Parts: sequence; C-alpha cells; structure tokens
Amino acid sequence: MLAELDAFARIGATGAGGVCRLAGDAADGAARDCLRQLLTEAGADVVVDEIGNMFGIFRLSEAGETAVLAGSHLDSQPTGGRFDGTYGVLAALAAARALKQSGASFRHDLVVCNWTNEEGARFTPSLTGSSVFAGTLDAETALALTDASGTTLRDALAQIGYAGTGRLSHRPVHAVEIHVEQGPRMEDAGARIGIVEAAWAARKICIAFDGEPSHTGPAAMAARRDALHAAARAICLLHDWGETFGQDVHWSCARLENAPNSANVVSETCAAWMEIRHPSADICRFFGDVYLQRLGEVLPPNGAGHRIVSDALRIAAGLSAEGCAQAERICAGLGIAALRLDTVAGHDALALAAAMPSSLFFVPSANGISHSPREWTSDADLVAGAEFLAAFVCKLLN
Amino acid sequence: MLAELDAFARIGATGAGGVCRLAGDAADGAARDCLRQLLTEAGADVVVDEIGNMFGIFRLSEAGETAVLAGSHLDSQPTGGRFDGTYGVLAALAAARALKQSGASFRHDLVVCNWTNEEGARFTPSLTGSSVFAGTLDAETALALTDASGTTLRDALAQIGYAGTGRLSHRPVHAVEIHVEQGPRMEDAGARIGIVEAAWAARKICIAFDGEPSHTGPAAMAARRDALHAAARAICLLHDWGETFGQDVHWSCARLENAPNSANVVSETCAAWMEIRHPSADICRFFGDVYLQRLGEVLPPNGAGHRIVSDALRIAAGLSAEGCAQAERICAGLGIAALRLDTVAGHDALALAAAMPSSLFFVPSANGISHSPREWTSDADLVAGAEFLAAFVCKLLN
Repeated sequence: MLAELDAFARIGATGAGGVCRLAGDAADGAARDCLRQLLTEAGADVVVDEIGNMFGIFRLSEAGETAVLAGSHLDSQPTGGRFDGTYGVLAALAAARALKQSGASFRHDLVVCNWTNEEGARFTPSLTGSSVFAGTLDAETALALTDASGTTLRDALAQIGYAGTGRLSHRPVHAVEIHVEQGPRMEDAGARIGIVEAAWAARKICIAFDGEPSHTGPAAMAARRDALHAAARAICLLHDWGETFGQDVHWSCARLENAPNSANVVSETCAAWMEIRHPSADICRFFGDVYLQRLGEVLPPNGAGHRIVSDALRIAAGLSAEGCAQAERICAGLGIAALRLDTVAGHDALALAAAMPSSLFFVPSANGISHSPREWTSDADLVAGAEFLAAFVCKLLN
Repeated sequence: MLAELDAFARIGATGAGGVCRLAGDAADGAARDCLRQLLTEAGADVVVDEIGNMFGIFRLSEAGETAVLAGSHLDSQPTGGRFDGTYGVLAALAAARALKQSGASFRHDLVVCNWTNEEGARFTPSLTGSSVFAGTLDAETALALTDASGTTLRDALAQIGYAGTGRLSHRPVHAVEIHVEQGPRMEDAGARIGIVEAAWAARKICIAFDGEPSHTGPAAMAARRDALHAAARAICLLHDWGETFGQDVHWSCARLENAPNSANVVSETCAAWMEIRHPSADICRFFGDVYLQRLGEVLPPNGAGHRIVSDALRIAAGLSAEGCAQAERICAGLGIAALRLDTVAGHDALALAAAMPSSLFFVPSANGISHSPREWTSDADLVAGAEFLAAFVCKLLN
C-alpha cells in the first residue's frame, strides 16, 4: 500500500510534493486507469456508473446480493496533498486483498469505491458522486455541472473514458471511509485512529456583485460602480464578523471570479464564494443571516449592486453509533490509541450516510495541514490505519 | 468612414454592442487584415514592423523622406467600445484618402498607423507598439511579454501573421491622434474638439500577497495565512485612502489573480494591480508612498506576507504647444467649438511624444463612458472630428 501511495503521488504531481488531479482531467483519468488495473489484478470486477463512480467488486459471499462499501476519492484540490482521498481508496484495496486472500467466506461482498469529484474544486458542489449514489443529488443535474471554462462534468468524464453505463447491483449494508484528519486534534491528543461521531454543519453562500465597466483612468470616481471594490468590502466584513465569534466558528472566502479582470476596466462583475462552518447548523444560519443583513451597510453607496447566487446550509446525516462502538472495541483489541472527534470537512462517508449506515475514520495529519503539498502522515500511522480498517471491514462482512 | 466604423464594430463584436479584440487574438488579426485591405485599396504601401505596428504609407511628397504619422489602435479591452482606437485609425485613413485624391503635392508623406497593444489588456504594459517605435521600450522586452496563459506577444503576433520584418524608413516630423474623450468634460462644456495640452501622471503598483494553502474547513483560523483576505484589506485601504483626497485623484484596483482560487483551499497567492492618477506626478508619488507605508497596518497580523512586484510612475512627455495653437486656429476657421483640456488616460500620441512633436485631440463621449459597450459618440461629432483632423494633417504636411 505504501508503494502504491508513492505511485499515485506521481500521477498529477505538482513538483512541490503534492498532486493536482481535478475531477475529470487527464491526471484523474490516469489515476483511475491505475486503480482499475490494481483492482482487476486483485481479482475484482470493476463497474463504472453514470456519474463515474468506480466500484471494484470483491466477491466474498455466496449470495452476492449485499455489500460493504469501502473507499474514498482519487481527485484532489489544485494544491492537493498525496494522501487526501487516495489513502482511503488504497487502504480499502489493501483490506480487500487481504480478505480475499484469506479464502474465507463472508455474509457480504466487499466493494472498493472511488467516488467522483469529492473535492468540488473543478465542479461545484463537492461530494458529487457519493451524493448521486445516495440519491440526494440528481444524476442529470450533476452531469450538467460546468467548470470555469464551460465544460460539463458529463463531457469531462467522457473525455477520460469514465462516463460509465454500469450500476452496482448489490444492496449496500454499510459504507466505510478512512481519511487523513486535515486538522491537528489527533496529533495533539496522541491518537492514531480518529473515530468520527459527527460532522460540522456548513453554510455556503455565493454572492455576485454587479458593477458597470468603465475606464479606470478618466471615469469620474463618483460615477464608478466597481464590483471588485464591493467584493473586497464583503470579504473584509466576513472576516470582521467572524473575529467576533469564538474559535469554534470557521469561515472563509477563497474563490473570486472578477470580470473583465483588466487593470484598465472598472470591474463589471465579481462573484465571491463564502463558507461558514460550525458544529451547530443554527450558528451557521445565524452567522450567515446577520452577515447578509450587514452587507448592505459596508458596500459603497451608489456602487455595485449585489445578489445571492446560491445559499446552501449543509447538515450532514449522522454516522453509525454502532460503528463507533465497534471501532473502539477493535482499537482496544489492537492496542491502538483512539480518539472520538467530529469532522469539520465534508467527506463521501457523510454523503453516503443519507442512504445507509456509514462510518468515517481518520489517521493523524502532521500539523493539521491539508489541501497543501505539505500534507503529511507517517508510514507507521498509515499502516496502523490500514490494519484497523481491515479489521473493521472484516467485522462488517460478518 | 462611418460605414467603415460599423464594419469594424462587427469584428470581435461582443453582442452587447461593444467589441473584444485583445492584442494578437483572432479578432485583432481580422481587424488588421481589414485595415490592410482598405489601405491598399486607397493606394498606400503597407509596412509591418517587428512589434506588429502597421504603417500605411501615402506617398504625397516628392522627396519621400519625411512623414507625418496619423493613427491610433485597433485592439480593445475585453469590454471595449466600438470607437476607442478604431475611430482614430479610420479618421486618419479618411484624411489620407482625401489628401491623396486632391492630387496636391506636399512637403511630407502621410503614414496611417495602427499601433500594437495600446490597451495593455492582454499584455502588460500598455502602449507597447508606440513605445517601441519611440525607443522608450526595447523590442525584445516587448516581444517577450506574456499573457495570462503564458503566450508571448511574439507568438501571438506570429499566429495572426503580424510578426513583421519591415521598418518605416521615413523620418517622422509629427505624430497626430484623434480619439474619443473617455470622460465627460467636453460634453459638459459643449465642445466638439478637445485639444489635449497635457496628460495626467499615473503610478501603477502590482502587489503580490503570499499565503499558504490549507483546508478552508478544519484548518485552525489562527494558523491561516490567507492571501485573498490580505488583498481584500489592501483594496479597501486603497479606496479609504483615495476618499480622503479631492475629486482630482483617480485610483483603482481592477485586476486580481487569486490562486488556487478554489472555494475549499485558503488562498495561497493573490496579486492585485493598483493604479493612481493625478495631473501631478508628485501627488501620485505621495499617494503611493503613504499607501504602501500604511499597508502593513491593515494586513491581518500573522497572515499572508506581501511584496511589490512592480511599481512604475508614468510621466507623459509634453504634447506640441505649437500643435495646440494650430488646432485652435483651425477650429476657429471651421466654426467648431474647441476646448483645451488634459487627458487622464494614456494614448499612443503620448508615447510618441518622447521621440517627436505629437498632438492629441478628442471628440466627445456620451456621459464620459468608455471601456464599455455603452461608449458612444454621435455621427455628427465623429464627422466633425474627421474634418478637423484632415485640416490639421493638411497643415502639418505643408
């Protein structure tokens, strides 16, 4: 598994130690091809569904009607690290190989999964493939998502040969995902397995500012309707308002689309993507409501107008309590220090929880860094996580 | 000329009534081809120099050694209007046709010019072709300029067939350009010809903010180094500082390059292009110096760092005083209301003034709007301007 992680880190390598594999791009296609080969070599049947989700079916049961799903995603952020997603897919593959080689017969089959566009970096929203599979996102809507250049997810998948026509015929009984933590809590606590009990809520608001193009030189200052100026005021307000909360609210604005983005044309339109996260959906709602109310106060008078393009409150379905208890028993048995915690980031296991019992586990991230080439987890932690996952999957299969 | 303006407005038409012809793109190439044909049909010899400047040589003198240069540019901003630049080229062509058809002999030849990349929208800095011709910008440096996708100006010109090998062998005795005003002063004053005496100074500063990528969800707020947040603070400071000055300082930030520009990755780098304009170079210098000093005070502590990528103070060479007096006499003779004024925007005539006597004239812009599909000048004003230009050029030729 460690050698496979190294091999995948070379696909879409950014040169800084990280990877860039945006959903449906050539690197994503190459990583998928590599996974398909590994699955086939390990004895799995590979099925690709209409949204590009990959299923490597290990037939471990007699009936062959029900399955445990284990996996994560191979796509990354533009500044992605080598473990985010990929580790969860390869740890599931390692577990499947071991269980298959044991020759034992189980109650369920095991399906190793690669979920499409978990990151949402190229196509928004994130968790696309797992949400379609769980039935909370319509496949046609998802396939019609476009990237910044207007390419649809449908066309992007077709270009890399992953516009599938298959369907997983098994009834899933449980989904499981192991992932790097992307935060510092396990490292701080000295834990090697994070048992995720719950997920933070997130409110994601996209605001468009509508100005008017004019010459940045002669146009009278009082007559300018500057969309970028309005967006800058809105970003500052987001941070000012966030600072008045405690440590447990996280907020961000990391994406801005400014047009025509020429130094000599007053900005005509500028869209800003704001995110607010907190364990409580009510706090996310309150933060966003007051923010939007106060926005009008900070925007330059007679300047650009603004409108809400999208405003979604994401409340994750609960993870399996039974799974958490089972995981704790397994860690105790293996002598691995475990920590119950919640997750701030979204994960495929959370999208799948809407449709089936689902479990999410973490291994530690050095300094809590992720979405960065500096993302790091030690070999020892990666191996301990894979051993834990194999034991957990084995319990589920029985 | 009016029909020709309509024809050029269809080349790179944006659908909103404006045009988008970025230097060296396909639409710029098509406009150049169209101009080349019109020049040839009018009896001019066409020469293209190494930076893509087009010269339509009308041989009106016996000696053929000296020339008056008249023209402007065919490239536009992404949200360009139909008159900006194009009017100056076509008005010069109309004047050349009339003088050629008169059959008269003059002291100098007349050269109709299309200067490369006046706008600076795709390749920065602006006034590229005229600056190379004037000797204030090195041709190799200019040809090596790159657009946002890394294409050089050299390659862009080659792709449209305008990487020229020619050279204008005439010694220029005077340059003249007529342009739409791009401001409201002529309309306010009821003037039909603007006689430009001087240009505002401009300070153009590009600042890069250097953050660190991390996950916008779990990364601890206190540990984030958010480049976009820093840029937003810098833009707000620019406007706050500008507001403390009177009406005669113009400032702007209209271009921002944010990376990786993904909603789920804290911004790693963000570059912002700031411009400050005032009749006095000293005020531009003072505005910028204090702005840069204060920048450190408004940036979030322990956040992204910042560095100055470029910082240029552009002080235009003076326009010909004799030309202004001559223009006033011509307007009085033609019964056209004239207004002496200065220009806030840069123009090719200002770049050429570094190397030869140069004159710049305006026709009115409705509501002062430009770099916008809403840019507008009436047919009557366009014709009056062309008549004035022909008379002015005729004086220069004698």
